Amino acid sequence: MSVEEIFAGQKLLALMGAELARVAPGEVDIALRFRDDLAQQNGALHAGTVAAIADTACGLAALSLMPEGSGVVSVEFKINLLLPAFGENFLAKARVVRAGKTLSVCTADVIADGEKVVATMLATMMRRPPSRAS
Amino acid sequence: MSVEEIFAGQKLLALMGAELARVAPGEVDIALRFRDDLAQQNGALHAGTVAAIADTACGLAALSLMPEGSGVVSVEFKINLLLPAFGENFLAKARVVRAGKTLSVCTADVIADGEKVVATMLATMMRRPPSRAS
Amino acid sequence: MSVEEIFAGQKLLALMGAELARVAPGEVDIALRFRDDLAQQNGALHAGTVAAIADTACGLAALSLMPEGSGVVSVEFKINLLLPAFGENFLAKARVVRAGKTLSVCTADVIADGEKVVATMLATMMRRPPSRAS
Amino acid sequence: MSVEEIFAGQKLLALMGAELARVAPGEVDIALRFRDDLAQQNGALHAGTVAAIADTACGLAALSLMPEGSGVVSVEFKINLLLPAFGENFLAKARVVRAGKTLSVCTADVIADGEKVVATMLATMMRRPPSRAS
Repeated sequence: MSVEEIFAGQKLLALMGAELARVAPGEVDIALRFRDDLAQQNGALHAGTVAAIADTACGLAALSLMPEGSGVVSVEFKINLLLPAFGENFLAKARVVRAGKTLSVCTADVIADGEKVVATMLATMMRRPPSRAS
Repeated sequence: MSVEEIFAGQKLLALMGAELARVAPGEVDIALRFRDDLAQQNGALHAGTVAAIADTACGLAALSLMPEGSGVVSVEFKINLLLPAFGENFLAKARVVRAGKTLSVCTADVIADGEKVVATMLATMMRRPPSRAS
Repeated sequence: MSVEEIFAGQKLLALMGAELARVAPGEVDIALRFRDDLAQQNGALHAGTVAAIADTACGLAALSLMPEGSGVVSVEFKINLLLPAFGENFLAKARVVRAGKTLSVCTADVIADGEKVVATMLATMMRRPPSRAS
Repeated sequence: MSVEEIFAGQKLLALMGAELARVAPGEVDIALRFRDDLAQQNGALHAGTVAAIADTACGLAALSLMPEGSGVVSVEFKINLLLPAFGENFLAKARVVRAGKTLSVCTADVIADGEKVVATMLATMMRRPPSRAS
């Protein structure tokens, strides 16, 4: 399946209103508009929202470099919340740091309103061979 | 604010239908029923959903040991997705490993249907003094 | 190779004077006596020393559950330094949280003088099949 | 104390033969020559060695932006070992991603022989005010 098809299956991201903003080899951006129901008590995006878009961008960036028909699962990720995620428009920008045969390592920054990096992620993604990817 | 009041302000968790299941000193459980719109392409819970309940449980567990009136923010967390998060009922069980004056370190397991640990988190939480917590 | 043989090849741990203290299925303890040349500026063990024994204990714990002849490499780890690592005798106690066919997830605590947990690690280890393990 | 003075107190790094290669505001490089006693069973640098130089570079990069007289401690770090750390000359290159009043977030790459990134770290460092830093 293509990056676009896999993205379309991420129902959590549809619930959040996130959109696939850019796909290039080894790089994927996901855009999200602020919504009050994605926030925490102080009106910033919840860390879970921030993690969801960054993790998905990392997984799709990894997938973009894998052989046709592969699937991808998140092995693990770590995220630092650098600033409270206040803003109107958020962009999770992921890129592959190292693409291995089985594992890929990716980073993502989440940027608020085009200027402030509010979070940064370092993630490990695993390839699923075609037969197990459906 | 109490753990219950802070939980009530987590709008993302309300969107997900998560509930505060247990609060004890240094321990918080959050329950979540599976819903299709919280899933990813293969019908398991999305990693972002799993991270959201685990991170919130960690933050509230940390808060439960802080002085009255404190707030809490997530500094960072790391989560390992051990198994695909298939199941009907999920429980994020967090406990404080080390409660410091400023920083608290917490772990959480996310358990599917009372038996399978599908994810484990290690997180750092920061206390906000009363004047900055509102 | 056995856990003992792999441990014997960890030259960094020999340099540090670390010893294999216990091996059980899925659990490995490594012991280290404080030495001034393993410390940082304030007389506590350096975080790199703490990480070295915890990472090795995690890798060997994972190896202990793998098929005969396997090798193991660290994919990634995260460590929280909970307290300054002051003490005379340190023990890194690792256990496997989830043993998969390719990846294993482990945790380790580093304990000072039998009582204080000074650090906790969450790590991902990867199996090397026999032909690639030598 | 200056970055150079704090580095001089890192006895583990002296034991390893590491050197402070570059200090700029928010950026620190630490150099290490391969030595057999810093390796693991397959002749690559041990993950503990790699983590030690990357963690120290991160801490000193954070310190370089803190008020005069501050100290620094590692709160936590996560490291991905991207490739086996084979090589003659290693450089841990750290930079500050976000410098806060109390916490700083840093990344570091460890580069072998000037070309291969063998590991990448994402770390949280904490400032110690002058009175507690000695």
